[in-house]
Amino acid sequence: MTEDDIIKELTKGQRKAPNRFGIGDDAALVVDNRIITHDTMIESIHWDSKLSPADVGWKLVAINVSDIGAMGGTPEWCTLSLSVPEKTNIDWITAFSKGMREALKKWNINLIGGDTTRSPNHIVASMAMGSRRGYNWAWQHTAQKGDDIWVTGTLGDAAIGFFEPKKHTYNTALQRPIPPAEFGQTIAHNKMIHAMIDISDGLHNDLTRLCTRSKVGARIDPTALPASSVLYNNKKSLAYQTAFGEDYEYLFTAAPNLETLLRKLAAQHKVTIHKIGKILDAKHSITLDNTPWPSTLFSHFQKAK
Amino acid sequence: MTEDDIIKELTKGQRKAPNRFGIGDDAALVVDNRIITHDTMIESIHWDSKLSPADVGWKLVAINVSDIGAMGGTPEWCTLSLSVPEKTNIDWITAFSKGMREALKKWNINLIGGDTTRSPNHIVASMAMGSRRGYNWAWQHTAQKGDDIWVTGTLGDAAIGFFEPKKHTYNTALQRPIPPAEFGQTIAHNKMIHAMIDISDGLHNDLTRLCTRSKVGARIDPTALPASSVLYNNKKSLAYQTAFGEDYEYLFTAAPNLETLLRKLAAQHKVTIHKIGKILDAKHSITLDNTPWPSTLFSHFQKAK
Repeated sequence: MTEDDIIKELTKGQRKAPNRFGIGDDAALVVDNRIITHDTMIESIHWDSKLSPADVGWKLVAINVSDIGAMGGTPEWCTLSLSVPEKTNIDWITAFSKGMREALKKWNINLIGGDTTRSPNHIVASMAMGSRRGYNWAWQHTAQKGDDIWVTGTLGDAAIGFFEPKKHTYNTALQRPIPPAEFGQTIAHNKMIHAMIDISDGLHNDLTRLCTRSKVGARIDPTALPASSVLYNNKKSLAYQTAFGEDYEYLFTAAPNLETLLRKLAAQHKVTIHKIGKILDAKHSITLDNTPWPSTLFSHFQKAK
Repeated sequence: MTEDDIIKELTKGQRKAPNRFGIGDDAALVVDNRIITHDTMIESIHWDSKLSPADVGWKLVAINVSDIGAMGGTPEWCTLSLSVPEKTNIDWITAFSKGMREALKKWNINLIGGDTTRSPNHIVASMAMGSRRGYNWAWQHTAQKGDDIWVTGTLGDAAIGFFEPKKHTYNTALQRPIPPAEFGQTIAHNKMIHAMIDISDGLHNDLTRLCTRSKVGARIDPTALPASSVLYNNKKSLAYQTAFGEDYEYLFTAAPNLETLLRKLAAQHKVTIHKIGKILDAKHSITLDNTPWPSTLFSHFQKAK
């Protein structure tokens, strides 16, 4: 049973949502032009001992912020539903709250409500988040032939934090992701991009999703993929960069003539961006130059097993 | 560690929400005058074999509808975050979806997004729901001395479905609750009530909550509590009616001169209402006439253990 099977059942016979971006996308639109997201993190599935309780609190906020920023929105409010086993200590809650609070403060988000309840064995933290009202949303289905493909930040940091934690110091992409949501919001609102997606399921998966929805092909230059120094000389670099996920960065596509302006805006936002490939027409598939795509290291749906 | 301890930690140092109804209430208000709710149901905590998968789908919608209706709102959209163990069969998802769909259709709600993910052992279903925009919300903190206390429907049906399932046929308050949300919305919008709360945590708990927040006392006539015929001659009636919960009915308080109008509106909505007591001033406690309150049969936070 795949995630797609489940979504198909859940949405069967569903009356059409107010717009075409319903369940199955990372975020949904509400009638009054707000984006709503809803993500759940479960102990042992979405985190293990590599994340402190404060990291979990931070990350739950960050993954929702990432979804909203990827659609060009600015987060405004959230609700939290927290379910804890009887054995959980109040210290866990205190530390979780601290991490959550830091992230809420960073992105200027109000926690407006929610509920708490008992869980049998594992901590479950579910957060819904809403954006401010806005227009010029960024979509996943509107990439155009001839677009440059860009990514923010560096790729593979979360993977090395996951698979080789000892080689990596604390405070990595895995524990404390900082999605460049303001930059995403800026380039979407200024109509500088044609499509955008966060690559939390990995570059290959999310690029495929964006191209399929846009009915286009793509070619990626593996030598152009940005990496931080922790990947230096690591033989698994390419797999870490393309086949894992958990990098809360954005992939976006834009007309080539906007390169200078995009680089300038990125610099203003203290975000690095790299041009990694081209959108091709639909008769092309989605390829890496001169090398096959590495096998998936990680399924978002069975993570941290 | 109580639910209150957890909420205290979660909201510590939190910047003030846009209004006074933040986390800790059943529902929260957003800046643009929508109510947002967020409730989670976990297998083995919030349901067991007494609920079919379709019942769970229905009930997840109904409990959020109940929260919104209790504040006088009309539900409009929801998001679902569903987490399932690997062992879960697609048949479970299909049946769950069917029950959810029936409830969404009943209350005219759009499922606009969400996510699906893996869970280690138990199914986790988390739903956030938003109301249409509106005014004249119903509060929990505005009951006034001299108000009549009313409840909708009958009390104790969910309890007998839980404790004595063999005595009760299928399709009880426990499996398929139908909160009278439209009636709640109507009496709130017509400014006919002073305060309202849903009694899903039990009459005693929720009346205490409402009175504490309103800084008033209350006196309830146990002989006036409405019961359906399944409670006839049951020695535990009073405990089932006051000390269990899961009855998705509303308790509201209103000026005595509105009795006739309230009864008329209730009849129009095919909702039964019963006058069960009086709001007293703060120097009175919250009492049952001639009998102590039965001990809690059920803690919302440790249910179905």
